[in-house]
Order: sequence, then C-alpha cells, then structure tokens
Amino acid sequence: MSFPPLPLCLPRTCLFSGSCVSHRCGFLCLAVLADVEEFYAFCDPEKENLCLYGLLNGSWEVALPSEEVPPEMLEPALGINFTRDVMKRRDWLPLVAVHSDTWLISVAYFYASDLNDNDRYLLH
Amino acid sequence: MSFPPLPLCLPRTCLFSGSCVSHRCGFLCLAVLADVEEFYAFCDPEKENLCLYGLLNGSWEVALPSEEVPPEMLEPALGINFTRDVMKRRDWLPLVAVHSDTWLISVAYFYASDLNDNDRYLLH
Repeated sequence: MSFPPLPLCLPRTCLFSGSCVSHRCGFLCLAVLADVEEFYAFCDPEKENLCLYGLLNGSWEVALPSEEVPPEMLEPALGINFTRDVMKRRDWLPLVAVHSDTWLISVAYFYASDLNDNDRYLLH
Repeated sequence: MSFPPLPLCLPRTCLFSGSCVSHRCGFLCLAVLADVEEFYAFCDPEKENLCLYGLLNGSWEVALPSEEVPPEMLEPALGINFTRDVMKRRDWLPLVAVHSDTWLISVAYFYASDLNDNDRYLLH
C-alpha cells in the first residue's frame, strides 16, 4: 500500500491543506482500484461497523470508527462492510468511492477552516 | 425555526445540488446564531451521542445519528453535546459551526456525484 507519485493537477481544494489532504487523496484509487481484492476481503460483513480511512502516509485502512466523540473531523461512512454482499460489486465499489470522495472533501474543508487571511488569499 | 430568504450569493457548490443543499445551508446560521440558546439547551451532555442536522426545509434538528448503516450520505459529527460543558462557549460554538460546514460541503459533493455531463457543464 505504498503511495504513488502525486498527480500534477490536484484539485485546488487539496492544495490549501497542503500535504495532509494531498496524501490522503491517494488512498481512494488504491483501495477501490489497485488494491481492490485486498480491500474487498477486509470489508467482511460479519465484522463490526467498518470505515475506509485515508491515512496521512497516502495508504488506506479499513478500521473501526474513532472512539473519541466528537471526532476531530467528520468520520468516513460507517458500516461500508454491511452492504458488500447485498449489492452487486460494480454498484458497491462506486458507492464506497463516492462516500470516500465526500469524506475527503470534508477533510479538506475542515483543514481550511483554520486558514488565516494570507492562506485564504493564496487560494485565489 | 422557519427558514429565512435564501442569500443571493450562495456558493457555487450549493447551486449544483439545487434546492436540497441550498435549503440545508440555512440551518447553520439559525442553530449557532439565531437559535443559539435553544440549540445550546438541546445539546445536553447527559444525553446520548447527538448530531446537528440541517433539514431539507431549512431548519435544524439535534438528534441521534441514523440507525441505517451505512448511511445514505456522511453523518454530521457525532456527540457534539459531550464537549458542550468542557469547553468555553465561544470555542464550542465555532467548533460545531466548522463541523456543520464540512458536513454541508460533503452533502453537496455527495449530490454532485450523481450529476450527468450536462449538469456538470452547467457548473462552469
């Protein structure tokens, strides 16, 4: 689960939170495309509520949600494993991808909330 | 908790998902500014994990998270009530606002995932 070179045209929403969000970006493609068989196996419906996390080192992890409540930032969709076997694989993977994408956006905006005036100016 | 007239300059991220996201936009200001005393009272730390939801009618609701797992879209931050009395009010309210803002962005992008080519073209 090593992280591939960052794409040259990252969305601007990734830039402002620097390497933190940029590195998390990598996990989505890795989990649902490159590592899809491994990811699929991790999402066992017999286990508890699992989430797909993008980590700061650019890899991904299927794990239980944070025990800290409220969490520092929004959690990924909870319980993605429960629908794995009740949906077609071609429908389930895009659903996970959409959830992961919206989570990544929420992380980016969470980081952005802490930007100062100068940082915000640099976005334009 | 009636919904005020929509602002004229909604962010473009609200526009593409039409009235659904636009109407949810209203809740943030209502809950943490206009209805702040009522909102504060609802967030009782003695209760279970509570979330702040923006509803489609433009009002807000403090409620338990969805029982459906995985949820249709990302849930708001869970357990905002637990930190109400361990933080200064002037720190807690902005924290809730940031969580709500990132949730609203994730809702917008969740809706956007279902747009067709023509809808996406209209965003430019």
